[in-house]
Parts: sequence; structure tokens; C-alpha cells
Amino acid sequence: MKFDVVVIGAGGGGYPGAFRLAKSGFNVLMADPKGELGGNCLYNGCVPSKTIREEAQLILRTKNILKREIPVDFQRLQDHKDYVQETRFKQHKRELSEYKTITFYKGIIKIKDPTHVIVKTEDKEFEAETKYMIIATGSEPFKPSFPGSEYCITSDDLYNYKTPLRKLPQDMVIIGGGYIAIEVASVFNILGVKTHLLVRGDRVLRGFEDEIVNILLPILKLDITYNAPVLEVKKIKEDEFEVIYSGKDGAKKSMRTNLVLLATGRKPVLPEGVYNIGLAIDKKGYIVVDEAMRTNLPNVFATGDVNGKAPYFHAAVRMSMAAAYNIMANGVPVDYVDYKSIPVTIYSIPSASYVGIMSSQAKKMGIDVIEATYNMEDEVMAQIYDEKEGMLKLIFERGSLRLIGAWMVGVHSQYLINELGQAVLHGLTAKQLASFADQHPSSNEIIAYAARKVL
Amino acid sequence: MKFDVVVIGAGGGGYPGAFRLAKSGFNVLMADPKGELGGNCLYNGCVPSKTIREEAQLILRTKNILKREIPVDFQRLQDHKDYVQETRFKQHKRELSEYKTITFYKGIIKIKDPTHVIVKTEDKEFEAETKYMIIATGSEPFKPSFPGSEYCITSDDLYNYKTPLRKLPQDMVIIGGGYIAIEVASVFNILGVKTHLLVRGDRVLRGFEDEIVNILLPILKLDITYNAPVLEVKKIKEDEFEVIYSGKDGAKKSMRTNLVLLATGRKPVLPEGVYNIGLAIDKKGYIVVDEAMRTNLPNVFATGDVNGKAPYFHAAVRMSMAAAYNIMANGVPVDYVDYKSIPVTIYSIPSASYVGIMSSQAKKMGIDVIEATYNMEDEVMAQIYDEKEGMLKLIFERGSLRLIGAWMVGVHSQYLINELGQAVLHGLTAKQLASFADQHPSSNEIIAYAARKVL
Amino acid sequence: MKFDVVVIGAGGGGYPGAFRLAKSGFNVLMADPKGELGGNCLYNGCVPSKTIREEAQLILRTKNILKREIPVDFQRLQDHKDYVQETRFKQHKRELSEYKTITFYKGIIKIKDPTHVIVKTEDKEFEAETKYMIIATGSEPFKPSFPGSEYCITSDDLYNYKTPLRKLPQDMVIIGGGYIAIEVASVFNILGVKTHLLVRGDRVLRGFEDEIVNILLPILKLDITYNAPVLEVKKIKEDEFEVIYSGKDGAKKSMRTNLVLLATGRKPVLPEGVYNIGLAIDKKGYIVVDEAMRTNLPNVFATGDVNGKAPYFHAAVRMSMAAAYNIMANGVPVDYVDYKSIPVTIYSIPSASYVGIMSSQAKKMGIDVIEATYNMEDEVMAQIYDEKEGMLKLIFERGSLRLIGAWMVGVHSQYLINELGQAVLHGLTAKQLASFADQHPSSNEIIAYAARKVL
Amino acid sequence: MKFDVVVIGAGGGGYPGAFRLAKSGFNVLMADPKGELGGNCLYNGCVPSKTIREEAQLILRTKNILKREIPVDFQRLQDHKDYVQETRFKQHKRELSEYKTITFYKGIIKIKDPTHVIVKTEDKEFEAETKYMIIATGSEPFKPSFPGSEYCITSDDLYNYKTPLRKLPQDMVIIGGGYIAIEVASVFNILGVKTHLLVRGDRVLRGFEDEIVNILLPILKLDITYNAPVLEVKKIKEDEFEVIYSGKDGAKKSMRTNLVLLATGRKPVLPEGVYNIGLAIDKKGYIVVDEAMRTNLPNVFATGDVNGKAPYFHAAVRMSMAAAYNIMANGVPVDYVDYKSIPVTIYSIPSASYVGIMSSQAKKMGIDVIEATYNMEDEVMAQIYDEKEGMLKLIFERGSLRLIGAWMVGVHSQYLINELGQAVLHGLTAKQLASFADQHPSSNEIIAYAARKVL
Repeated sequence: MKFDVVVIGAGGGGYPGAFRLAKSGFNVLMADPKGELGGNCLYNGCVPSKTIREEAQLILRTKNILKREIPVDFQRLQDHKDYVQETRFKQHKRELSEYKTITFYKGIIKIKDPTHVIVKTEDKEFEAETKYMIIATGSEPFKPSFPGSEYCITSDDLYNYKTPLRKLPQDMVIIGGGYIAIEVASVFNILGVKTHLLVRGDRVLRGFEDEIVNILLPILKLDITYNAPVLEVKKIKEDEFEVIYSGKDGAKKSMRTNLVLLATGRKPVLPEGVYNIGLAIDKKGYIVVDEAMRTNLPNVFATGDVNGKAPYFHAAVRMSMAAAYNIMANGVPVDYVDYKSIPVTIYSIPSASYVGIMSSQAKKMGIDVIEATYNMEDEVMAQIYDEKEGMLKLIFERGSLRLIGAWMVGVHSQYLINELGQAVLHGLTAKQLASFADQHPSSNEIIAYAARKVL
Repeated sequence: MKFDVVVIGAGGGGYPGAFRLAKSGFNVLMADPKGELGGNCLYNGCVPSKTIREEAQLILRTKNILKREIPVDFQRLQDHKDYVQETRFKQHKRELSEYKTITFYKGIIKIKDPTHVIVKTEDKEFEAETKYMIIATGSEPFKPSFPGSEYCITSDDLYNYKTPLRKLPQDMVIIGGGYIAIEVASVFNILGVKTHLLVRGDRVLRGFEDEIVNILLPILKLDITYNAPVLEVKKIKEDEFEVIYSGKDGAKKSMRTNLVLLATGRKPVLPEGVYNIGLAIDKKGYIVVDEAMRTNLPNVFATGDVNGKAPYFHAAVRMSMAAAYNIMANGVPVDYVDYKSIPVTIYSIPSASYVGIMSSQAKKMGIDVIEATYNMEDEVMAQIYDEKEGMLKLIFERGSLRLIGAWMVGVHSQYLINELGQAVLHGLTAKQLASFADQHPSSNEIIAYAARKVL
Repeated sequence: MKFDVVVIGAGGGGYPGAFRLAKSGFNVLMADPKGELGGNCLYNGCVPSKTIREEAQLILRTKNILKREIPVDFQRLQDHKDYVQETRFKQHKRELSEYKTITFYKGIIKIKDPTHVIVKTEDKEFEAETKYMIIATGSEPFKPSFPGSEYCITSDDLYNYKTPLRKLPQDMVIIGGGYIAIEVASVFNILGVKTHLLVRGDRVLRGFEDEIVNILLPILKLDITYNAPVLEVKKIKEDEFEVIYSGKDGAKKSMRTNLVLLATGRKPVLPEGVYNIGLAIDKKGYIVVDEAMRTNLPNVFATGDVNGKAPYFHAAVRMSMAAAYNIMANGVPVDYVDYKSIPVTIYSIPSASYVGIMSSQAKKMGIDVIEATYNMEDEVMAQIYDEKEGMLKLIFERGSLRLIGAWMVGVHSQYLINELGQAVLHGLTAKQLASFADQHPSSNEIIAYAARKVL
Repeated sequence: MKFDVVVIGAGGGGYPGAFRLAKSGFNVLMADPKGELGGNCLYNGCVPSKTIREEAQLILRTKNILKREIPVDFQRLQDHKDYVQETRFKQHKRELSEYKTITFYKGIIKIKDPTHVIVKTEDKEFEAETKYMIIATGSEPFKPSFPGSEYCITSDDLYNYKTPLRKLPQDMVIIGGGYIAIEVASVFNILGVKTHLLVRGDRVLRGFEDEIVNILLPILKLDITYNAPVLEVKKIKEDEFEVIYSGKDGAKKSMRTNLVLLATGRKPVLPEGVYNIGLAIDKKGYIVVDEAMRTNLPNVFATGDVNGKAPYFHAAVRMSMAAAYNIMANGVPVDYVDYKSIPVTIYSIPSASYVGIMSSQAKKMGIDVIEATYNMEDEVMAQIYDEKEGMLKLIFERGSLRLIGAWMVGVHSQYLINELGQAVLHGLTAKQLASFADQHPSSNEIIAYAARKVL
């Protein structure tokens, strides 16, 4: 069988590009071991976790505003999560059916050489030839190896479609301090779980601007133990574990808990055969690509988590589209991804988001900035929800007053950051932001309010 | 007393400009009969009505997602509304206190001539001289005069700060078919009130694009009687009224209800003395202004509802800023308001929003368009909330693919419309929208998804 | 032979797209009867005519500024013109040689069906198969048929590569009032030829905004006879002709001259076979296309003069690129041409240029505008050259202050119009234009100067 | 006498702001020792030097294209220069007369304190009070002190209005390697003067990107001696001088010449009294300002050469407007100057221009770039003029493909750089530049041509 393009993986880095190519009549072979489109994001990542988050948000808000306590029925929460996942699985099936030139398999694809692959499904195995290849195999949780790590779950176990985990623990230890650890702690605290974070180093949310972290953390009121590398996890009995970690002075410390979650980062998933074709892979295992999604092999593209550039679903979708357009141009790039203008959100409650160049980075680059801030206590939706903690910061380049970056901690940050991200990507200025009349009442109003402060 | 600027009214058209002028050291006299900043919007308009709306949304969502029925305690809902209003009154007091050159009175301002006013407060009356004047006296509900109209309430009675109306009627007749009528019907239906709309003509939401109305109405499932001009309202007893209206065939019809709400539009509120100074006023009573907020008198500006250009709080704020900048330039315009790029939202549940030039208007102007749509059933937040009705439409100019307009019916439309409005105001194209990676999961993603359809 | 794309014609609508396709590895067959790239523009159109124009400009300027009369040696002027054409022929040959997948023939291409063509060269004829086709066969002068029209030359005879016409007539009658007629009259007047225009109707430069014509014409001081349809041209002797035309009252009038130039418009040149394939052609003979350069046949595109949309070389190049990108996307449009943002220049001395929506058109569309003007007498380069006639006008949409159109009459208009056209295409506002510091001294400064007038 | 604003100096940093303030009714006192508006730029700077340059260009072009040698009559060239200056003096007088609230004196202004100045004219001296002050006193040539420096002229002597220097020397030594030195050498070489540059260090055009210099210098074919600090200038006789300089090995060397021009940089001109008011001045003597033109004194602004930020007339005009707007806002900044987006041109023949961030600077900032170039030998106007040397380079940020900088060496660079500068200032991308159809034939076409190379 001959194809124009083989797409390995049907997540955010895979199916959008496959759809775009098919829209232009390209013959596409795509496979994914899940047998569903949407990747980890849908199967056990952003969609299910944010469904649970919205449920928690609803429970919290009802309590705060309507003064009604809603008992947490985790079985029901998970049922709704499964329903949302199912809805999207069906949606993607419908979308897939609209593209006649995509052949999709539940299975894996092994790379034989840059123009040949072996497709392995449950019941067959065959070779296919292709002009182009998009590797979009994603990533998976990284599990460090300490004694008893096998007793620990990962976020996959929390959020998998039809996961058996449908009863909340009373107490949970979360190992790690990345954004997944913070999100889980924030959400499950609201659901009534007592969570404790054990963090290897002396800070959480590495890679995020200090200012953001310093404003977010006091709001979340998490129980965090810093400088506490985990040494061992012991199973005491069903639903009871002892987590042994090293204290600041080197002495062993321990805590008992009902569930241990490993949130110690993610690692790329590479397709079989990838090491035999001369593909450049960096020392962390990510496939090396440029902004056009090109690898060092002229007909091979890599999109999504597997290239480590911006491990977020929406980034993967954007990369997938870029790969599609560049393949349509026979590999001569016509579309490039601007990684720095892709927004990032920590979906804690409240959320925190940023986009563009942060002040500390601007300083390093020698870009002078003018900043403008707005406190969430004065934001109307925050007042209506009585969730008034947080802040917005706009970062303008001095002189041009072009918006080069922005961040926000507080309710609806995940929506506002898009208006801000569009502005960053397209170079809008404080004057331009200030001249727009954002809808009242909507959280976005504070963008213009803040911009007007410098004018 | 001498001032640089007199600002008549402290609503959205008044205080933002007053603040900006004071920031530059201008001496400002401002007065408002409410004695509070924020105008009707805060006192009995958008802020309290949207607080009640969010509470209704919360009750609905909890029922749909968490499968929990929350009993509606209207007293409590109104208490929270009052709390939100109080919070903002305090906020504005704090903000006001930061501007040392603003003198604010609870009272009214009568215009003597373009450079002299009479200020009347509870306990004194005095004349003041001024170089510039901003008239920002807003609007009020228009009450048609039919027998028994005195028995009808308006939305003011529903939403006034500390309103005595704290018990829900079982049944409510709403006279009118504008966006306020629709919002009240939509929200109070959810709160358990049986609402009926009596509409004079054969359609509701005049002035809104047909497409929007045709998609929104079936979702809202309102009980609307068209071509039903009200002839009389009779009071039967405490909390029971008979509404008599003309049927299609001219025959009198009637319905009994517990509360009658008049939502028959708004009319400008003009300051005393305005007719003596030669100010141009149109036949509907609005003060005539241009895009720079200038009236026909060189030192008099009019902002907000009183000029009838765009009777929304966020539009008033934008106009107020423009007046301030133009006064700072001694009346030589440096800032102009682009009315057509101001978003408009119907805060029903779900909401509907639009911005820019609609398809029917583009056709009239001779602008060829390319449209792109996205159904809410495929939008991730709509799926998570299980509120999947509605649609997004993007309207691009052919050739340039510049976004000239957009509308959306569905959850979060009031947030998305801002990203779209910025794009319309600043002339972004389908390519530019498509190249942005909106945060996942967030409703805004469908903007890029739709834009990509034409590329 | 099989090709991906057949490109019929190697002018502005042909070769740029062919190059782009070849850059992405597409196999392209291209043919042109001239055997050279560049089309009429290079062979006998804009390039040679503007070379002569620049020579005339130089002679005029030397006289005005340096007070030196340079005798006009038309043989030498034409030699330099040929040299410039030769330079570009060579350049295109070099460029062509860089694209290995383009097969170029001197010859014509006859269309057999939408996927088959017959190529006819001097020494062979063969059939070729293709997936896509770009028709870019251009246009040619339209010659009306009146007695003696065979004695008239066209601009082709003036500007053909190696044209035998290398001696200036003393007196020349130009039949027509379009931009070519005006350009020839303006330039040849400076070269010492006495020119007379005979115009059929009561105005020249139909299709151009009245304001532009009304400012340009008095500067050019042409000898124009309006309402003077030509009835006959008689040859009196070698280099002497009598032109007989109808006077306003219907009486026959005549004038004697040494040369008669027909400048009565152009008509599309269609490839052989085009009528047999079901291609939509409008009543003037132009191939019907949309903004994506698509004809009614899914694999056939038409670019450049042959579609009549914007008969200018630079427009053709832009269309050619769009066709290439859309073919790369398998005919699913990804690139659209915004015709209204393509600048147009009358290369008289001085020149006149415009771009975007003119005031009269805006009025028809119901767009309110704010205009800003600048007189050339105050423009520094015009002063240095002592060519101070003319004017710039910027046309902003009220409210947004977005630049929707601009025109200029005066020296360097063909350079300024590009900065203005970029602004129109990308929606820049008066504030944005005003905040740029155009290089001093350069003609472009007046753009910011004019923009600042409305701020 | 009381004024709103005192403007010290009527050059590019002074009069545009004065005009803008007067347009809004501000009372402005302005004085300049020249008694004319336009500053050095008009009196002895850019305007006269570029007039001579255009004359030289004309002579060169006539020779190259028309094959006609025009004898150089320097008296006549200077006469035309004086005429251009006179034209502009008159224009500015007319403009000044249109602003009724500007009081203009020929004279100097001494600062007494931040709100009081002493005006000294030929026949009177008086004190004036002011709310705001704009210092726009410009700069003057810096003359190093070596024996015989009094025998050297500066560019002022070449270009002064009605300068007595109206006879060309046969041979000229130019001391210095800045842009003025290069321009004079390039232009006067064409006029038949044999020029020699003596440069202190090992390169010319310090501060300009190496690439630009490396392409420009070989085209100009100047006679440059590097590492040659001048020790003494001796007058041999009328019109003959000996210039003694240090050779690379330290040995004294000398050359005889007819004229010695000092082009050793410029230094700020500060108004009297400036040292007594606590104004922050940097160690080179420039007044310290921010992007809003504010000094450390809240009511004092400094614009143009005197602040050393961007010593060009067009930059001064932009700064002057910013100061005016910020004064209108009572010193609360509403307008900021983006220095890096101001184009810079070396008006040699051919010229060289740049705008934005150069590649070497981007590298230092950590901004990855994609470059696109175009050779002037393929540019149509360069071919028509037969001035085909030079190159265009576009510098895009990787990912966003936003144009962050551009430079060009070659004919018309001073016009193209404006289209490029607008793009840099407003953040246009390669896609946006590529989608514009620049007028053909015009030099600007190569912008789109280059941009298309990366797409």
C-alpha cells in the first residue's frame, strides 16, 4: 500500500494535520494504539482532568455563592467525565468519517525506513510505503525508580477513560511539584481529599515566572514539603501506604497516606524503529525539530509532545497544522510555529496562565519593558463569584508599547489569555488594547483597564 | 468655584473619563443623584442582573452536571447581589479617593450655560464655572402609558440595590421583546418562575441579525406571544394582575399573573437646562455627537447612553475615555470611538454575542464575505457543562480574509466575543486567527478551528 | 508526458507561480510564444515604457534643476530600453535554470481537455497530461475597426524589444483616453513630440476617482479633444496621416499628424481550445475566477490579465503566487487575493497612484470617512526636484481611523503608494501611521504628516 | 508674560510639537537663534546636503543612462540648494502664521528655573513664565583641537544657506569616518573632487551593522586611510593645506590637499542656564530622557539631537510630537517613541538604510532569526538606472516570522526603508509582506519578493 503521508499517533499532533491533508485529497495512513482520536489529552489528560476540575469548581462556587454544600459523589463525577470523553470520541469518529482518504487503524506503526512503515493491529501486520511521515506519538508519565514505586499511581490512573479509580481517598501524597501535581492537589483538596506535596527541590512550578508562582501559591494554600526526595513507598495495607523521604537535614522522614500519586514529569514516547533511520534525537529523548516541524530527515516531521517544544494539546494541534501545510508544500516550509506565543495554563482553582515573554526573560534579552497590573479583587466576575484573589500583568516593550507578554492568576485566566495571546502573536500595542471596549460584565475588561494605565 | 471639567453623571460615561482627567491633574467636578459611582449599570443594571444570572447558571449547571437540585432561595440570591453591588460601591469610593482633583457630590447638576452649572445637593446649591463639560446622564426605562401601567415594575425594581423585591412570583408577564425582556425571561425561567412575553410586533430582538435570533430563540424555549400590544393591566389582588392585550384578530385577550414587568426600551435622561444652551438633540431625545464625543458646542461632550450611540456600559467607558483624551487636547480630537467594533451580548442562558459587521449588513454595503462556522456541540467546555447548543460564525471580507464581524450563540459567548472584537477592531485576518493556538481546553479554541476552515 | 501543472503563458501571471511550484518539487510545463519570461510587461509593456519614462524624467529634471538642455536622441533611448529588457530576459533565464522541474518551451499550448494539452513549438507538437492548469495568457491591445486603422500603431510598436520605431515623430495623435494614452502623451510631450488625444467620450481615465483626474490633468497640460470618435485614418504620405473624427456637433473634423497611436484598451488573449472545455468566460471574454484564482473547473486556474480582475503586472504576480499555493493545497484554497488593496499607478510625469477604497466608493457603501491631505508643494523631494505639483489624500474610516484608501498625484507616487498599500491591506490606523518616523528627507514623510492632521 | 509651553529651538525637535500644541490652543513661546524654523537640518544639514546629493545623482545618472556628460557648475548647484532652503523657510513661515498662539523670536532662551526663562533677541531681553518647557537645542559639529584645526571647515561650511563656499576644490581631505564623512566623500567624488578619508580607527561607520558596511564600502570605492589620527593641519597657501597624521607604525605621514573637512562627530548644544536647574545630563553632555521625552524634571521635556537618542531630523519630529501629546496630558505620558523602529539612512550614492533590530543584535538578545535577501542586480529600477549594486536583507523572528529588522544598500533605499519601517513598528509578518502586490515597476517590489522566499 502506498500513502502520501503516514501519521503515527492520533492525538493533537496527529489528527488535525491528517484532517487538513485529507481535505486537500492526500492519502493518509494514521494509527494509534488507543483506537481513538484525541491522544492522551482526551484519554487521560486535559479533557478528563478539566472535567473533574469544573465539577470541583462548581461544588466550590455553589458553596461560596449559594451557601449550599453539595456532597461529593466521586463515582458520579467520574461518570460525567467518562460521558464527556465518550462524547468527544464519538465526535472524532464522525469527523474522521468525513475524510474519505484517511485510513485509520487501532494499532502501532513501526518505522522501517523513512519511506516505509510496518503497521501492527490486533489482527494483522503489513508494510506501507509513504512519501511523508508525521511522528506524533506523544509522551507518557515518567516514573522514577525507587522501592515501592509500583504502589504509586499516576494522573493516568485518575483520569483514564472508565478508570476503576472511582472512590476518593481521604489523604493523598503527591510526589512532584510540576503543574500536574499542583492541579491535582488544588482540585482534590476542594473535593475533600487532604493532599500533601513532596517536592525534590526548593521550589515548585520550575520554568514558570517567579512572580506567577509567588502569587498563585498563597492562594492555593497547599501543603508542600520542599527538599524532600522520596526514598521509598511501603504498602502498609490496602489503601494505606507509608512514604519515606529525606528531610532537609538528611534524616529519613515518613508520612502515611491512602494514595500516592507520582507527578514527576513526562517523557517522550518514540515509535519503534525510530533509532534505525538516522533521526536526530536530543539527549532527553525528544525528536529535534525546527519551527516548521521538520526533523533532520527531509520527509519526516514530528509534532506534539514527542518533540518537547511545547507539550500542550493546543500547541500540538498548531504544530500538526503546520506540518500539514509544509507537507502540502512538499516540505518547503510555508508555515512556522511561534512557540513563545502559545499560552500556558495551570488549571488549579483558581487558574494561572501566561503567554509570551515574561519580565525576567525580557530583562535577560535586554528588552526594556513597561508593566501594567490589575488586581482581581476589582474584577467584576471575580466579585460575582466571590473568587477575588489574583492579578493580571501586561508586559509591554518600552517605546513601541507592543504587548510582548502577559500573565494572570485568577478566575477565567484560561479564557483571557487567548485575547492576550492573539495580541502578543500579532504585535498589538497598549493603545490598541486600550481602544477596545471589552464586553461588560466579562473578565476580559481588565485587559483594557490595565492597558489604559500606561496611556 | 472654577473647574477644568464638569462631569454630569458618575456612570460608565462619567467616572472613567473623570479619573483619566484627574490623573493628568485636571480639576473635575462630578455629581450623580445616586451618590455612588457606576451608574445604572451598577445600581440596577448589568452588574446586579448578571449576578442573578450567574446564580441561575450555577443552579442549572449543578443540576445538569452534578445531578443535584438546589432549592432557589431568592432572598439569598438578592443578598449576594447586594453584596456584589456593595463591593463595587466601595471599590469605586477607594478609586475616587485616589484622585485628589475630583470633587464629587451626591446631587444633580443643572446647566446654566456652556461654561456655568448649578450644583444641587441635599443641603446646598451653588454655581460653578468650567472650561469643559461631559454630559453622561444616562438613560432610564421607558414606560408606555396604558391603564394600569402603574402596577407594572421595571427591571430597576428587580435589580435595585437593596430592592424590596426578594420573593419570586410563580408567574410573570414580561411586556416587551428587547434584550432585557429576553434576559429576564431566560434567567427567571431557570429560577422557577413561569414567564410569558407579550410582544407588540412580530419579532423579538429587533436590531439583532436574524440568524442570531433564529438560533437563540429555539434554545431558550420562551413562551412568547407576538403581535400582542398590551391594552391594560388590572390589579386583581395583592400579587395578582390581569394583563389585557390585543390578539392577532383584534379581539381582546388576557392572562392572569403574579407580576408584570415592563421591558419596553429605555429613553435618555437629560440634565436640567440642557434645552437652553443650543445643544443639538435628535428627535428621540438623544444628544447628537460624533465619534470624538463632541456635541455641536465646542466645549461640551456627551458620553454613554445619553447619546444613544451604543447604550452599553463598556461602550460608555470607552466613550468616556475618548472624551477625556479629546478634552486634554483642548477639544481637538485625538481619540475616536469605533462604534461598530463594540461587542454586544444578550445575557440569556446561554448567552449570545456579536461584534462588527453582520452578513446582511455586509451585503447591503456591497462587501463580499466568506463565512466560517462552528457548532457548539463540538466545543469542549460546552461538552463539559453539557450545554451544547449554539453556534459560532466568523465573517471575513473576501480577498483580504480580514475578520469584519462575528457572532456566537452559546456558553461563554461573552468571553469569546472579546478575542473576536479585538480582531475586528485591529483588522486581523483568518490566517492570523488560524495561526494562534488558543488554550486547551477553553471555549476560545473554536475561533481558530473555525478560521482554519477557510484556509 | 505527465506533469503536475501546465502553465500557459510565462508572464507575470505565469512564471512566479511556476517558480513557486517548482521550489516545492512540482513538475511544471510552461510555454510562451515569446520564448522569454516576463510577458507583455517586459516585452512591450511596463518595463520598456517606464524605461523611456525614466529617461524623459531625467531629461526634464536636468533641465529644471541643472538648467542643462539634453538633446533627445531617441535611438539612444531605445537602445537603453533594449538593454534593460535584455538584462531582464537574461535574469529570468538564470532564474529559470535554477528550477530543475520546469520544462519551458517557446511555443503555444492548446487545451485539449482539462487534463490534456497540445504543445506546439517551432519544430514539434506533442500532447501532455497534467493534474492542474494555470491559464495566464494575458491580453493584447484592442484595435477598433475603422477605415485606415491598419495605419495606426499601438504601444506595442513603441516599446517592443528591438522595435524598428527609433525615430521620434514631430506630431502624434493618440486615439483613446485610458492610462496608456495619458502616459504616452505625457512622456512623449517631454521628449519633444507634440501629442494630441482624441477621446470618444467626455472624460479620460474612466474608472479612476474624479478627484485624482481633476488634479492630474491640469498638471499634465495635455491637448485633449473630447467627444471625438475617430471615423477614419488616411495615409497622406510616408509619416503623414489625416485623422478624421466626429466633432461635438456631428460635423466631421480632421487633423494631420506624423504618427497615429491606438490606445483604445486591451482584450484578453485566450489559449486555443479554451471554448471546448466548459470553462466559464464572461461576456467581455475574460475567464471567470474567484479570489483563489479558481475557475469553474476544479483543476483549472486563471491568473493575470486573462481574468480581467486587475490587469497589472504586480497583480498578476500576486495572483500567480495564490494559484501556486492553492494548487499545492490540491485546489482547496489557502490563499486569496485582495484585489482592492492592489495599488494602481498612472506613470505620467508626474505619476498618480491610488490604492484601496476611494471616497466616492466609500460613500456608496455607507462607510463614513475622515480625509487628510498634503500638498506636494510642501514635500521636500518635490522641492528639491522643483516638481511641486500634486497632492496626497488619505482616506480613513470614521471611528476606527483605519486607512481604507489613499491616492497621490506627484513625484514618487509609485513608491509611496506601497507604504500606503501595506497599510490598507493590513488595516493600519491613522495613529499607527502617525507614530512612524518616515526617513527624512524622503517623499514618504508626508504620509505621517497627513495622518497626524486627524490626531 | 505667561506661557503654557516654552520651546527652546525651532528645529525638528521644536516646531512640530509647537504646532501641535498651538492646534489645541496652547500658548507657546518659541525662539531660535537662526530666526528660521527647521533647525540645522534645513539650515546646513540634511536638506541642503541632500539637494547637492540629488544634483550629483542626476549628473551621474545622465552620464550612465543618457551617455551625456554634464559639466559640474558648483555655483549653480549651490544656487539651487539655496533656493530649496528658501522655499522651505517660506513654507515654515506660512505654517507658523497659521498658528495664532505661537510667539516666535529670533534669539536665544536662557533657563532661569524650570518655570522661568529669559528671552534674548537682538533688541530686547525679557523674562517669561511657563508651565512646560521643551528643550530642543540640537547639536553642532564637534571639532577636535589639534594644531591647525582652525583651517578646517565642517559640513556646515559646505551647506550653510548662502554659504560663500561655491567653488569646488580639486582635492579634499575628510577627517572622520562617520556617515557624514562617507556621504560627503561619495557625493563630492561624483562632482569631480578627489576625496581622501583619514580615519582614526580601523573601521568607518561605527554603530552600523558590519554587513551593511561590508557591502556599501566596495561600491563607493572611497580612498580611506585607516588608523590615521590627524596630528596637525598646516596652511601652505590659499587653498592648499598639508595634513599630517600618524601612520600605522607611528611614523608621521602627510598629504597635501585643497580643502580639509572635519567630520568628527557632533555634540549637543545646551541652552544657557541648564546646569543650574538640576537637570540630569549624561557624561557626553546629552539630556537624559525616557521614551516619553521626559527629563528628570516633571515639566521639562527634551527632544531631538540634544538628548542623543536618535540624532536624525525625522526622529526629532516624532519626539517633538510625543512631547506635545504628553504635555497635553499634563506630563502623564500617553505617547512613547519607539527608537528602534526609526529608520536610518546613509545618503551616499547609492544610499544605505536600515531599521529595527540587526542580525548581530538579535543574536545577542537570543532572538533566532530567519533572513531573506534580494540582490539589487535583479531590481527593476536599478536596472533601468543601471545602478545595480547592493542588496536587501529582511530579518524575521523565527516562529512568528515577524519582521524585526531590515537593511538595504542600493538605489532608493531611503524610500523602501519606510515601507519596511512601518512593518517593523507594527509587527507585520513575512506572510503579510508577501501578500501585498507592490506596484510594478517600483523598487519596493523586492520587499515582497524577498519575503516570499521564506514561504
